Amino acid sequence: MSFEYSDRVLELRARVQGFMAEHVFPRELEYAHWVENPENAWMYPPWFEDLKSRAKAAGIWNWFLPREYEEHSPGLSNLEFAPIMEVMCQVPWAQEVFNCSAPDRGNMEVLARYGSEQQKRQWLEPLLDGRIRSAFSMTEPAVASSDASNLETTIVRDGDEYVINGRKWFTSNAYNPNCRLLVVMGRSNPEAPRHQRFSMILVPLDTTGVVLERPLRVFSNVHSPGGHAEVRYDNVRVPVENLIAGEGRGFEIAQGRLGPGRFQYAMMFVGMAQRCLDLMCRRVESRVAFGEKLADKTSIQHDIARSRCEIEQCRLLVLAAADRMDRYGAKGARDYISMVKIVAPEMCQRVADRALQAHGGMGVTEDTPISRIYLTSRYCRIADGPDEVHMSQLGRQTIRAAL
Amino acid sequence: MSFEYSDRVLELRARVQGFMAEHVFPRELEYAHWVENPENAWMYPPWFEDLKSRAKAAGIWNWFLPREYEEHSPGLSNLEFAPIMEVMCQVPWAQEVFNCSAPDRGNMEVLARYGSEQQKRQWLEPLLDGRIRSAFSMTEPAVASSDASNLETTIVRDGDEYVINGRKWFTSNAYNPNCRLLVVMGRSNPEAPRHQRFSMILVPLDTTGVVLERPLRVFSNVHSPGGHAEVRYDNVRVPVENLIAGEGRGFEIAQGRLGPGRFQYAMMFVGMAQRCLDLMCRRVESRVAFGEKLADKTSIQHDIARSRCEIEQCRLLVLAAADRMDRYGAKGARDYISMVKIVAPEMCQRVADRALQAHGGMGVTEDTPISRIYLTSRYCRIADGPDEVHMSQLGRQTIRAAL
Amino acid sequence: MSFEYSDRVLELRARVQGFMAEHVFPRELEYAHWVENPENAWMYPPWFEDLKSRAKAAGIWNWFLPREYEEHSPGLSNLEFAPIMEVMCQVPWAQEVFNCSAPDRGNMEVLARYGSEQQKRQWLEPLLDGRIRSAFSMTEPAVASSDASNLETTIVRDGDEYVINGRKWFTSNAYNPNCRLLVVMGRSNPEAPRHQRFSMILVPLDTTGVVLERPLRVFSNVHSPGGHAEVRYDNVRVPVENLIAGEGRGFEIAQGRLGPGRFQYAMMFVGMAQRCLDLMCRRVESRVAFGEKLADKTSIQHDIARSRCEIEQCRLLVLAAADRMDRYGAKGARDYISMVKIVAPEMCQRVADRALQAHGGMGVTEDTPISRIYLTSRYCRIADGPDEVHMSQLGRQTIRAAL
Amino acid sequence: MSFEYSDRVLELRARVQGFMAEHVFPRELEYAHWVENPENAWMYPPWFEDLKSRAKAAGIWNWFLPREYEEHSPGLSNLEFAPIMEVMCQVPWAQEVFNCSAPDRGNMEVLARYGSEQQKRQWLEPLLDGRIRSAFSMTEPAVASSDASNLETTIVRDGDEYVINGRKWFTSNAYNPNCRLLVVMGRSNPEAPRHQRFSMILVPLDTTGVVLERPLRVFSNVHSPGGHAEVRYDNVRVPVENLIAGEGRGFEIAQGRLGPGRFQYAMMFVGMAQRCLDLMCRRVESRVAFGEKLADKTSIQHDIARSRCEIEQCRLLVLAAADRMDRYGAKGARDYISMVKIVAPEMCQRVADRALQAHGGMGVTEDTPISRIYLTSRYCRIADGPDEVHMSQLGRQTIRAAL
Repeated sequence: MSFEYSDRVLELRARVQGFMAEHVFPRELEYAHWVENPENAWMYPPWFEDLKSRAKAAGIWNWFLPREYEEHSPGLSNLEFAPIMEVMCQVPWAQEVFNCSAPDRGNMEVLARYGSEQQKRQWLEPLLDGRIRSAFSMTEPAVASSDASNLETTIVRDGDEYVINGRKWFTSNAYNPNCRLLVVMGRSNPEAPRHQRFSMILVPLDTTGVVLERPLRVFSNVHSPGGHAEVRYDNVRVPVENLIAGEGRGFEIAQGRLGPGRFQYAMMFVGMAQRCLDLMCRRVESRVAFGEKLADKTSIQHDIARSRCEIEQCRLLVLAAADRMDRYGAKGARDYISMVKIVAPEMCQRVADRALQAHGGMGVTEDTPISRIYLTSRYCRIADGPDEVHMSQLGRQTIRAAL
Repeated sequence: MSFEYSDRVLELRARVQGFMAEHVFPRELEYAHWVENPENAWMYPPWFEDLKSRAKAAGIWNWFLPREYEEHSPGLSNLEFAPIMEVMCQVPWAQEVFNCSAPDRGNMEVLARYGSEQQKRQWLEPLLDGRIRSAFSMTEPAVASSDASNLETTIVRDGDEYVINGRKWFTSNAYNPNCRLLVVMGRSNPEAPRHQRFSMILVPLDTTGVVLERPLRVFSNVHSPGGHAEVRYDNVRVPVENLIAGEGRGFEIAQGRLGPGRFQYAMMFVGMAQRCLDLMCRRVESRVAFGEKLADKTSIQHDIARSRCEIEQCRLLVLAAADRMDRYGAKGARDYISMVKIVAPEMCQRVADRALQAHGGMGVTEDTPISRIYLTSRYCRIADGPDEVHMSQLGRQTIRAAL
Repeated sequence: MSFEYSDRVLELRARVQGFMAEHVFPRELEYAHWVENPENAWMYPPWFEDLKSRAKAAGIWNWFLPREYEEHSPGLSNLEFAPIMEVMCQVPWAQEVFNCSAPDRGNMEVLARYGSEQQKRQWLEPLLDGRIRSAFSMTEPAVASSDASNLETTIVRDGDEYVINGRKWFTSNAYNPNCRLLVVMGRSNPEAPRHQRFSMILVPLDTTGVVLERPLRVFSNVHSPGGHAEVRYDNVRVPVENLIAGEGRGFEIAQGRLGPGRFQYAMMFVGMAQRCLDLMCRRVESRVAFGEKLADKTSIQHDIARSRCEIEQCRLLVLAAADRMDRYGAKGARDYISMVKIVAPEMCQRVADRALQAHGGMGVTEDTPISRIYLTSRYCRIADGPDEVHMSQLGRQTIRAAL
Repeated sequence: MSFEYSDRVLELRARVQGFMAEHVFPRELEYAHWVENPENAWMYPPWFEDLKSRAKAAGIWNWFLPREYEEHSPGLSNLEFAPIMEVMCQVPWAQEVFNCSAPDRGNMEVLARYGSEQQKRQWLEPLLDGRIRSAFSMTEPAVASSDASNLETTIVRDGDEYVINGRKWFTSNAYNPNCRLLVVMGRSNPEAPRHQRFSMILVPLDTTGVVLERPLRVFSNVHSPGGHAEVRYDNVRVPVENLIAGEGRGFEIAQGRLGPGRFQYAMMFVGMAQRCLDLMCRRVESRVAFGEKLADKTSIQHDIARSRCEIEQCRLLVLAAADRMDRYGAKGARDYISMVKIVAPEMCQRVADRALQAHGGMGVTEDTPISRIYLTSRYCRIADGPDEVHMSQLGRQTIRAAL
């Protein structure tokens, strides 16, 4: 047991930190204003591709990839990648600069693990190269989708094609100007045993019958440039080759997809919470109210102390989850993955909430990243299944293990 | 002591409820989509003036006005108005339909109480009539404005004019297409005793030197059609007649302005929280996850029970505050006004938070009012001074009273 | 609607306050040391009966009794009694001085309402007179007793007698030196419809077969002089006349018993919480740490402000519940009774928790009432059914009402 | 970085687990009843010494000792000892069976590190051998002792003796039948710089002038057999050789004493919380209420999930703190030591609180360890300085580090 980062991790992290300091932090406010401006809907800032090129040139690219893809990345373990991820996520959009952003990361992992050679050539390569983006289309408006067995979209074989019908929403990234691919989950085998009824299939965005109904607003923000689409699938036909792995394997793939994604999500919240705490510490040193520096008020000190304790604990939990995943795989790390999913967004929201109060009016504006972090945290207590679903599952597993 | 609403209150409330049911609720979603659409920035929906006319025709207009203005309103006490306010606020923008919305309400009260005859004629009448809107310009970006003695904007007499210089923000309503008037607070008498250094003055929006720098985004929403402006006052000159009440009375007026406003704010949160709870109750009856209706899950039942308890308690507290204000005035009700300011937004945010979780993805979208209510509550834990300032004040007063 | 206490209430309350100041507060610490001393187990302090006589002489006696018993009490409504109750409960054992203590109060109400003339003569009169005490025997160790339909104790008719068998615990007051009577709930009609299977019966404490197995420790305190007994009923035989009201009416009686009791309980927590807050306010004025009075630390101010807000809200809720009970009876006030049961102990524990922290080491000792109040609050989140049961019930009712 | 326990730790922990299973758990309830019984005040159960002998014979003895004392213990690092400590603490009194209990552990560490050869011979050896016990006398009733510079007890040199005068309380262990030694902190050099005014001195318990005034009750429990004494020092004279390390070094020694002690404390809470969770899991599987196993209620599942998350995070934090202490010493680990002091008792209390609710009435009785764990946690949010003091300190340090 040891709590020190290895020299290699420290070295790689320092490289990322350098890149962040030189290229990302200076553009943080500019990016915020760009995406908030409705005139820029579904467009990246003009300099964004250049930043990606620089990251690629610097070799900070696709680092999320598991060891077997060492030609594309340094082949980091999850435990090694986690502390680097934390740094990348201090400014959330930096993840895409390093080609590590959701939902593309998860889609790439699915293709790498379950895709056919042709699927890899056609979709994985341009994704790994950052030339195209992709979306993940699972949640449906008509049912409680956190219980995936409720999903109603159908995938029906008809000769050499599958026909897809249904309505999805929260299909994130579908409005991205570079999006070309939808990864769709639907019911293919209604008569099969409960967990073998669903399949996952690749649908090019420009397929006939794919209708983007509207960009959803999340807390009144469309989250440009990726967006969250409500999508209608209206007799959408794709060749049978587009099925991933085989009929009835949708659940299995979804499970495998979620593990690393959730741990990455969780580390993002650690990074963002740390960011809020740093901003808060600086703010309270610089403001005076009622004859006293904010930093000298015990209520502020306590808020900072609590935040520190919560961040530190969550960081350790995410690292422990990453370590579990390395040693026992997503299944063996299941409880830990539930735990970080439950703990991290809530922790980050609490920390952001305190930072926001300490910033007064400025806290709710676009002039600091705090309000965005606050909302991202809140949103993610719903995204990927409401926390309640994960708590019930973790609770049941804990009981079972204790008997 | 009695906890029953009087027949008069019940009758008036029923009238408002009828109006809400007929005219407001059916347009709730439409309004939401209108203001979210950037193309409609700083514009009201086309039917909005018509709704105001109908409300005025129905006599539901200016009911917030104190008894002495009985010709303009039914002359309700605060305690009588409170339960009606709750109904009006279930859809927050309805307040303006009834000419009771912030910050106009507060500005009208200031003019009614402290304004000269000429000020009343020029500004109060069109405000009472709903022809124009006004803004309140107090908070400054450079200082902790919750400690009003920090304010740096200056109001300097120069012959028959006052010259105003400074920078304000969160000047809400300044972008409103009907806004004509700014009520500005600034330092006029720097040598006077601490609480007599500030004055309040009327500044027509079109005065030379008034520069709206930008509309602030609050959680990335500009809050059209009113907006929150950052305003530069650059050698702004107004005639001395525009001063309200007299030099050095800024604090006194601000105090008087806040009492009724805060209790109204607080009741808004009760109304909005009740709305969220009602929506939640209906939602959980209609959704099934993991083989069970949401309504049958004990965690959901507990969330609803807690919400019910919190709403009920807060409602009683706001009513008690209104009653205090009627009996002892804003000063005698000071502690209660602090209490409702602290309790109500936090309560509403908690209730909205639970309703949001129970709605899954839909909760964060514009398809229900929940996400807006959630953000309004969060924002108001900062607006009008962060809760922490009010808690410190209430804490000190409680200690003093106990000795 | 009005939030002012009537002159009558104010006058009666002042009388009780006077009595408390003269006779109760001066003995508070002495009582605490008496009951903590194991040598005094199951004994009252020698002066206790004298205090009761004085209260009776002062006419402050049996005030809880409903209007129809005006010969024994001033015939107060629940709403009138509530604020007086708050004063009585600032020192919890004072309730017995005024003959208003649990579980006797509830038992007296049951006898008054459902008892036969003979039962009233034999048991109600000495209880009203304060000569004897009684216990209530419902909870069982072997089952989740909050779901009363789980109870396993049997009441079987055998000729002119009922035979009782079973094991109960938390039979509070059974060790009281003056206890003479057990009110026992058991299953009498196993084949009847679900809510008509149970009966309530009077069992003199000295009946053969009644075995007090042990005094339970509640947080390691036996709660002398009343105690909480684990009781074995071993073929206990009582005459059929001892049945209350009729076979199968146990549930109905238990429901009726709980309403006023719970509201009284709740008001006790308001009184105790207010006591803690008062003590805290005085303490923080008198202590200095790290160069600053505790009262000047914002964290302390916030703790006091939050406590004030919570007490005030809870007080209003209990008053509203009392008012409902007056107007609509226990059934019509059901939701409010659930609410105060859920809200009050938790509120009091939070307030006591803060007061305890502010007192440092002294807070956990017997030198202030805070630690006892803290534990009473905690205990009562279980007593009378865990809060969770009440929240589920309230949640379900709220959903039902909203549809 | 690695989250796996070493083989050595796993082996040693298994030995302790074996001892606990064979000797400690079977006597848990018996011990509880023994110490609760006032007739056994200040006495150990008759079998206690035998258990210590067995532990010593099994070599599980003094394991807390740092590496340099390898002849007395396996020479474990803090990080190695922590997981073993967790097992020992599942039944808190087991710590003394292994000679690792507070305050003796801390006193032994002080003597080992700062004691003279003679002090070690006279006091450290019998302590290490478990023949005597000791107390730590620092907190005073008259001042806020968490700010140690407030302490008023004096240590004045008079020839070859020091004369001690003052009043202490919470001198834990002073009533222990085996207690022979008091380690006393007092002001010796009032004119010195702030942090060099205090000294620590050894006072045999039987010295003339040492008066145990009373055993304090902590939540009405005297905590036999050790107790918490209020002690009067009335012209107590001890030879100058009894001073530890030198005049004015009291603060320095106190700091060094606290580091390992706090981390041990913290791990105790992890062990106790885990115990509560295990008991809760088993309980909810075995009880039915309202037609459903408790384990199937989502509110119970969530309570368990939250507890699991909190325990896991706190455990990791304590391990990280232990690791810091190994690598950087108590000073370098200062922030982490503050963090575990703040986090662990509160976490444990929350977990115990939920377990208590799930046990219904049984939860508050002596029939499970839950109620004791609950109170120990609550007490320790005060002991060793209220959490607020540690939060202020941690908050200030965090701000300083962020600038």
